[in-house]
Amino acid sequence: MDQLPARDPVSGPRSLLDRLFDQGLLVRTGVDGLYGRSGEFESVVEAVDRIATRLGAGDGAESLRFPPGMSRPAFERSGYLKGFPNLAGTIHCFCGNDADHARLLACIEAGTDWTGGQAASEIVLTPAACYPLYPVAAARGALPEGGLLFDLQSYCFRHEPSLEPTRMQMFRMREYVRMGSPDQVLAFRELWLERGTAMMRELGLPIAVDPANDPFFGRAGRMLANNQRAQGLKFELNVPVNSEDKPTACLSFNYHQDHFGTIWDIRQADGEVAHTACVGFGLERITLALLRHHGLDIEAWPDAVRDRLWG
Amino acid sequence: MDQLPARDPVSGPRSLLDRLFDQGLLVRTGVDGLYGRSGEFESVVEAVDRIATRLGAGDGAESLRFPPGMSRPAFERSGYLKGFPNLAGTIHCFCGNDADHARLLACIEAGTDWTGGQAASEIVLTPAACYPLYPVAAARGALPEGGLLFDLQSYCFRHEPSLEPTRMQMFRMREYVRMGSPDQVLAFRELWLERGTAMMRELGLPIAVDPANDPFFGRAGRMLANNQRAQGLKFELNVPVNSEDKPTACLSFNYHQDHFGTIWDIRQADGEVAHTACVGFGLERITLALLRHHGLDIEAWPDAVRDRLWG
Repeated sequence: MDQLPARDPVSGPRSLLDRLFDQGLLVRTGVDGLYGRSGEFESVVEAVDRIATRLGAGDGAESLRFPPGMSRPAFERSGYLKGFPNLAGTIHCFCGNDADHARLLACIEAGTDWTGGQAASEIVLTPAACYPLYPVAAARGALPEGGLLFDLQSYCFRHEPSLEPTRMQMFRMREYVRMGSPDQVLAFRELWLERGTAMMRELGLPIAVDPANDPFFGRAGRMLANNQRAQGLKFELNVPVNSEDKPTACLSFNYHQDHFGTIWDIRQADGEVAHTACVGFGLERITLALLRHHGLDIEAWPDAVRDRLWG
Repeated sequence: MDQLPARDPVSGPRSLLDRLFDQGLLVRTGVDGLYGRSGEFESVVEAVDRIATRLGAGDGAESLRFPPGMSRPAFERSGYLKGFPNLAGTIHCFCGNDADHARLLACIEAGTDWTGGQAASEIVLTPAACYPLYPVAAARGALPEGGLLFDLQSYCFRHEPSLEPTRMQMFRMREYVRMGSPDQVLAFRELWLERGTAMMRELGLPIAVDPANDPFFGRAGRMLANNQRAQGLKFELNVPVNSEDKPTACLSFNYHQDHFGTIWDIRQADGEVAHTACVGFGLERITLALLRHHGLDIEAWPDAVRDRLWG
């Protein structure tokens, strides 16, 4: 891990989150991990997103954009609830009549719980940008010879209220997703490990690439996490943002083997189950890493960093 | 209402929605009103969004971007559930242990309902881009002499599954919101009625500006809707998209009087309750109107329209 800059631009008695509020870069909503963003904050998010576009521009990815929700049946089939039931968000709706409506309003008036009558809709919040993609790809039939490459971005939801600004409940993830043979998807992951590392260095950020695991739930989850690490399936590009001891994963590089290919019956051209891999950019996290290391005054960032973002 | 073009570029036996799927502009998810968007579709959405930015560029609006969810306490206080309980979406989460998790997975395996144990979180989906703004503005204290102007955009949710492509459950709304005296906010609404009308004409769309009402729920809602019309509080800029008989509201111009000012105790500089108004651009709806009237081949759109979007 590189050293933090000697002159720490945002150290001080107040937390990073408080300083982001003070500066107006993030806006309080009353819920931990749910924030408004200023126009300035957004200009960095958009610039990082454009860099990700430029890095992948020559690869011929198909660009798709999904809304922040996905089909509940697809979500159930995806297996997400096996690993991360605690992070998922289901969308519930009112299906009552005038009398039910009156009762609901009376509960709100009295300050008592009114949500018991809400019924699960067909939509759940997207947990990672690539989850809505797999059923769409599967519906197209077997992959072409060279496999497929997609470019995605969406708001994602994870129910993990936190005071660390890098752990938002609603945040944007940019992704490239590769589907094909094991060789094809591993080459893709290798390429993006190099590209992502170079990108972050050019943005003047101290980084480390580390093996990682997803935060699988419960007792059974520990074994899944250990397996994932032992097999080298997940790497994260970490930057100290909230603290030096617990750096923040700003990009992640994931080899799913045939996990999604089997679930969705996605086939390679030769009939074998497809392998998949993805690289994910945490757009808010990269933005926060830039603010943490170059200071909260974006106008005063080093010229080289500003040129890379807006040049 | 202007006439539809004599040569209807997307008429035919298949519905507009089916043709959008056929062309790959929208992508099926299995849920009515929830669709993926192609890169081409998004390029139009982004171009319309940029026009809205240019039109308001000289006004000094403060730009804020909220995620697609907002605080549930703020949502309850906003009054949205009085008018539109049926459209709201609450986000529910799993709070159980390993045993609860095993039961949840067994339900999914058996194809029975597993959502009963989900508990309401502190977050609800944003129903209109301006709803998260009012408590933020209120927390800043009384308005300055000239009032305030905000620029917003977010994904919004309304639970109204439909086969009309213009009635999506998740869609993006760009908004300008004015807070101040009645004169200030009415002048703002008038200005945007003119700007919005000119914008849509320059995009080659046949439009009508009509008085309108929100779709208030239930028996009591009918009276609210009638009042809103009688007082001329809401106007919509309509374009035939799905049909000529039922044109689609692509922009709306809303004078809230002191509704939000009273709920949130937002005060003018002189201590009077603030009035508010907003103009909302339905970004997907304007995009669909362009596709409907200029054809599904975006490259073949009239030069004047393409220049306005990308010139």
